[in-house]
Amino acid sequence: MKSELDFVNYLKKIKTFNKNIIEGIGDDCAIVKFSSRKKYVITSDTSLLGPHFSKDYTPEEIGHKSLATNLSDIASMGCVPLYALYDITIPRISESWIKRFFDGTRKLLNQHKVSIIGGDTTKGPMSISITLIGVQNNKILTRSGAKTGHDIFVTGNIGNARAALILDKKTKGYKYFRKSLVMPLPRVAVGLELSEFASSCIDISDGLAKDLKSIAISSKKGFQVDVDSIPTDPKFDIYVKGNLKEQCILGGGEDYELCFTANKKYIRKINNISNKYNIKITRIGAIKSTGYRYSLNNKQYNPKVTGYDHFKGK
Amino acid sequence: MKSELDFVNYLKKIKTFNKNIIEGIGDDCAIVKFSSRKKYVITSDTSLLGPHFSKDYTPEEIGHKSLATNLSDIASMGCVPLYALYDITIPRISESWIKRFFDGTRKLLNQHKVSIIGGDTTKGPMSISITLIGVQNNKILTRSGAKTGHDIFVTGNIGNARAALILDKKTKGYKYFRKSLVMPLPRVAVGLELSEFASSCIDISDGLAKDLKSIAISSKKGFQVDVDSIPTDPKFDIYVKGNLKEQCILGGGEDYELCFTANKKYIRKINNISNKYNIKITRIGAIKSTGYRYSLNNKQYNPKVTGYDHFKGK
Repeated sequence: MKSELDFVNYLKKIKTFNKNIIEGIGDDCAIVKFSSRKKYVITSDTSLLGPHFSKDYTPEEIGHKSLATNLSDIASMGCVPLYALYDITIPRISESWIKRFFDGTRKLLNQHKVSIIGGDTTKGPMSISITLIGVQNNKILTRSGAKTGHDIFVTGNIGNARAALILDKKTKGYKYFRKSLVMPLPRVAVGLELSEFASSCIDISDGLAKDLKSIAISSKKGFQVDVDSIPTDPKFDIYVKGNLKEQCILGGGEDYELCFTANKKYIRKINNISNKYNIKITRIGAIKSTGYRYSLNNKQYNPKVTGYDHFKGK
Repeated sequence: MKSELDFVNYLKKIKTFNKNIIEGIGDDCAIVKFSSRKKYVITSDTSLLGPHFSKDYTPEEIGHKSLATNLSDIASMGCVPLYALYDITIPRISESWIKRFFDGTRKLLNQHKVSIIGGDTTKGPMSISITLIGVQNNKILTRSGAKTGHDIFVTGNIGNARAALILDKKTKGYKYFRKSLVMPLPRVAVGLELSEFASSCIDISDGLAKDLKSIAISSKKGFQVDVDSIPTDPKFDIYVKGNLKEQCILGGGEDYELCFTANKKYIRKINNISNKYNIKITRIGAIKSTGYRYSLNNKQYNPKVTGYDHFKGK
């Protein structure tokens, strides 16, 4: 059991009992049928001091980010978030800290009309585990529907969050990218639109290379990605130098943008969504029958990065 | 915000959006309608090294207890547990630890036919947050249905877990009571039977005095409890001395027995359940219109204990 994937595979072998589980462990959310009509998605994730936020985060920022990263899992399934349960562990009970945390989280709750229905509070090393339940609107997007020839797209810019993580906190670059790292905006509305036609979708939390590979593995396909076409912030090249670029774009996670695949015939729909929400949506490659291939400057390229493994902590 | 209750009240004020939330924050589980037919209950709780388990717990025992305490919340609602999400944070990834943890948890999963559908693993200070989803079979039991004149009952023996916590680990008493603390058995089957007729129910996790008071507050009633009638283990008086007794019986939590109220006419049903599952069910008092009253040796008595507050950590 050397990686998160080994662990997921171990858990998958544990017996399940209910025929209403459509998808168990392995995607961004589980899919469950509660009624004969609609399917629901459920996800639960932990945010910790260290891997997920650092000491310079304000309580509002922790409140925002810990929910945003969970909402992003609902967004990648193309579903509507409904209910949240908060398991909060904090080292010292401070009324002002708690209020500021919930001020940060509440803006997102209100924006997405999500209701807190439960949870737990304990005293200990800081840890925020949030469980979210959402419901399908159209099709539920998973990692497993990509077909050979489908185009691969990403929303927004890639690499900003990792840029903030690797740049010195005293630099202009860090100050510029910090917001992307600390206050990611889950693409819930875009995910819902994509659920009408996208063939697969994932949120970029562990790095584009790793997350796209998850789509390929789940879909039993390969891919060809043009690294030059991966969209970055206009100031990315100014602040991020040399080989750090690849680490940010392919290896870096925490962008919480969506990576999805779609048949070419939907390109007009995709452009309309991009215009409607004023969010860049960029084609970065195509699904192939086998192989994980990258090109750079029109030459085949082998990336050096592997993406974040929460299990290994790197 | 000085206690868990203050915090719960703070959370209750956060706006909710969905008319399918039957009960939000405040009971052992939230109650949600997913379909027109059945209601579901959802609960999420964190177990930490320190307040919930100590260094002498084996991984199997942590796996058992962290699920058992959550199953107990489903039991107290009189519902059938269905799905579990595990958010596990461990300081060091050890394959043998993980397998032993899941060996401990799997026995309970299989016994109650609960399926793991998701979760998260991270590296950090040990923390196990489990979210459970259950479904109603009969009525869903809450804390709020107790009526004046209803009898108050508890399952099993009270005080064993706290006895283990306060006794020196080298003593015979500790060795005798340790199993009650470390391997509690959630009363799921009994809860399901009670859901046919009980008027209110709670699991004893924070101490009988506090948990019974929660029923009283939610039901807008009072109670009269005869302390002498609270059932204890045959060896309780041998190992637990003097004023520690009250701390164990009224203040101690973690027994994960059920405390419920019922109309007198159901006494035969209650006896049948007790016989069917070979679990002691004892009447300890009655619901009154107001006041929280205790008697000891036929005299009015004022307990000194208040019960465990997860927020204060004591």
